[in-house]
Amino acid sequence: MKLGELVTPAAIADAGALDHNLRTMSAALPGARLRPHVKAHKCTSLARRQAALGHETFTCATVREVLGMAEAGLGTDLLLANEVLDARALGKAKARVTVAVDSEATIDAAAAGGVREVLIDVNIGLPRCGCAPEEAGRLADLARKRGLSVRGVMGYEGHLMMVEDRADQAKRVDQAMELLARAHRDVGGDVISSGGTGTYDLNRLATEIQAGSYALMDTQYLKLGQPFRLSLAILATVISVSPGYAVADCGLKSMSMDHGNPTIDGAKVWFCSDEHVTFAPEAKLRVGDRIRVWPAHVDPTVAVHDRLHVVDGENVIESWPVDLRGWA
Amino acid sequence: MKLGELVTPAAIADAGALDHNLRTMSAALPGARLRPHVKAHKCTSLARRQAALGHETFTCATVREVLGMAEAGLGTDLLLANEVLDARALGKAKARVTVAVDSEATIDAAAAGGVREVLIDVNIGLPRCGCAPEEAGRLADLARKRGLSVRGVMGYEGHLMMVEDRADQAKRVDQAMELLARAHRDVGGDVISSGGTGTYDLNRLATEIQAGSYALMDTQYLKLGQPFRLSLAILATVISVSPGYAVADCGLKSMSMDHGNPTIDGAKVWFCSDEHVTFAPEAKLRVGDRIRVWPAHVDPTVAVHDRLHVVDGENVIESWPVDLRGWA
Repeated sequence: MKLGELVTPAAIADAGALDHNLRTMSAALPGARLRPHVKAHKCTSLARRQAALGHETFTCATVREVLGMAEAGLGTDLLLANEVLDARALGKAKARVTVAVDSEATIDAAAAGGVREVLIDVNIGLPRCGCAPEEAGRLADLARKRGLSVRGVMGYEGHLMMVEDRADQAKRVDQAMELLARAHRDVGGDVISSGGTGTYDLNRLATEIQAGSYALMDTQYLKLGQPFRLSLAILATVISVSPGYAVADCGLKSMSMDHGNPTIDGAKVWFCSDEHVTFAPEAKLRVGDRIRVWPAHVDPTVAVHDRLHVVDGENVIESWPVDLRGWA
Repeated sequence: MKLGELVTPAAIADAGALDHNLRTMSAALPGARLRPHVKAHKCTSLARRQAALGHETFTCATVREVLGMAEAGLGTDLLLANEVLDARALGKAKARVTVAVDSEATIDAAAAGGVREVLIDVNIGLPRCGCAPEEAGRLADLARKRGLSVRGVMGYEGHLMMVEDRADQAKRVDQAMELLARAHRDVGGDVISSGGTGTYDLNRLATEIQAGSYALMDTQYLKLGQPFRLSLAILATVISVSPGYAVADCGLKSMSMDHGNPTIDGAKVWFCSDEHVTFAPEAKLRVGDRIRVWPAHVDPTVAVHDRLHVVDGENVIESWPVDLRGWA
C-alpha cells in the first residue's frame, strides 16, 4: 500500500526512526534492564519488536493493557505499574502478573483478585500514587501476610522527565532514588523499577527502567536532545488554503493537546479544532497536498487511533492494530 | 446494571440532564431549525433520540460520521460540514448527503465522488475552512457547472462561541451573519446553515443551527449560563490517597485536555497524567470511592470512549456504543 492511499488523518510511524530508537535503547539497556512501557504505543505488534530485541518484561498502565499483552503471548513478566481496586481479571490472566500496591486497600484487592506478586509503589516526589518511603516496609509486611510475594519496589520520578539542564536533572534523580533506596532497604526483593525515557541514562539505582516514549518519540521529548528520533506523525490532507494560512484534516481528536500544539515542518501552527489544524506555511501549499504533523505527546495520541501504519518512504510496509486501547 | 459494576474510567451521561437538554433545545429550535451535530457525541443511539424529537437532519464532521449515520438508518438529510478531497464513499452512501465545498478542488472532489448536493462554505471570521464571502457566488456557479446542486451556504462563527458578554456576543454574531448573508445573496438556495451551542439563541439569519454540545454539555459551555445541564461525566475510582491529595483512575487518555483541566465537585484538580487525575478533595476520601469527573470539552472526550453509559442515579439504564469514532 502507498502512503497516498491512506485515509487521513492516519497515525504513521517512520520505520527507520522506529528501528533506530528500538536498537539505540536496547544497546543502552539490554534485556531485562529495560521493561518497555506499552502505554506509549498500545500495540502488541510493536511490543513484539521490543521482545525480539531481548526485552521480555513489560510495563503496563491499565488492566486492559495487561490482558491484551497476555492474549498476544507476551505475558512472560508483566508489571501493572498502577493501582487497581478490582484485580480479578489480572488473577485469571495467563501470564506472570505483578501489580503495584501502595495501600492496605490495594493489597487486599490484589490478594482477593488472585494476583500473586506485587511491588510496593513509593512516592519519590511526584504527587500521584505511591506510599511515603517510610511506609513501604510496613506495607510489604502486610502484603506478605496476605500471601503475596513482594518482588521489590517501584517509584516513578515523572516530575523530573522534562528537566532540560542535564546536570540538574541527574542530581535530582539521585535525590529521588535515595528515597526509593530507603524504601527498598525496608521492603527487600530483587526489583527496583523506575525511570522513563527522560531519565533512562541517569537513573543509577533502578534494576529496570520503565521507558516507553523512546520508541515513537514526540516533540516534547525531542527537546531533551536524546539520541532518539521522531517516528510518530499524523498524516493529514490539506483541505483548505486561504491567504496567509492553510487547514489540514487532523485536529484535537487525532492528536492529544495536553503538551500543547503539534508542529509542522516549515510552518507555524495557529490552533487545532476537533478535526482541523490551522497553520501558516512558509511555502505555498495546494488543496490535496499531504503533510506530516508532529504531535507533542505520543502516548495519548496513539491511543485515539485504531491503527498505526509503519511507513518507509512512500510505502506502508505494515499496519498494526492499536489493540491495547480502552479499559473495559 | 449498577453504576458500581462499571469498569472505570467510564463515560457516563446523566439521563435526566440529557433529557432536559434535548427537550430544551427542541423547544427553542423545533424540527429542521436544528441540524444536530453528531461530532459532539458520536453515538447513533443518541442521534436517534434527537430524531425522535423531530430532528431528522444532521450535521457531521467526518466521512466516517456520515457513513455511520447512513448505516444506522439516519440518513434522511446528512450535511458533512467539512471539506473532503476523497468523496467516493459519500457518493455511494445510502443517504441524502450534502457536503461543504470552499474551493475548485473540493468541488471537483465532490463531483468526482458522486456527491449530488453541496453548500458553499464561507469564512465569516474563524480562520479555518471557508471561502471569502465575495468568492461564494463564483464557486456556486462552478459547482453548478460541474452538475452539483447548490443548496445554499454555511458559515461557522466558531470564534464567537465562548464570548461571555451576551450583548457583545449578539452584536458580533450579527456582524458575522452579515458576511454570510452577502454570500447567500450571490449563491442562492434554501439553506443558510450556521451556529452552535454557544450562539443557538442569537443567530438570527441561519435557517438551521448546527449545535451539538448542548446534549451532553461540558464545563466550558456551562460558563455561558445557558439553560443546559452537565450530563457527561467520567466515572472514576479513587486508587490512592495521600495527605493533602487523592488520585483517581481517569486521566488525559479518558478526557480531552485542550480546554484545560476537568473539574471535580468539592475538590481542586491539580493535574492529569495519562491514566490519573491528582486532586485535593475538601472532604476525606477513601481508596475505592467512586467520583464523577467533569471534562472541560465534551466532543473529544466522548471520542476516546468505546461506550457511553446512560445512568439514572445508581442504575445504568442504557449503554450506547460510540459508533461514529475513527476515520477509516
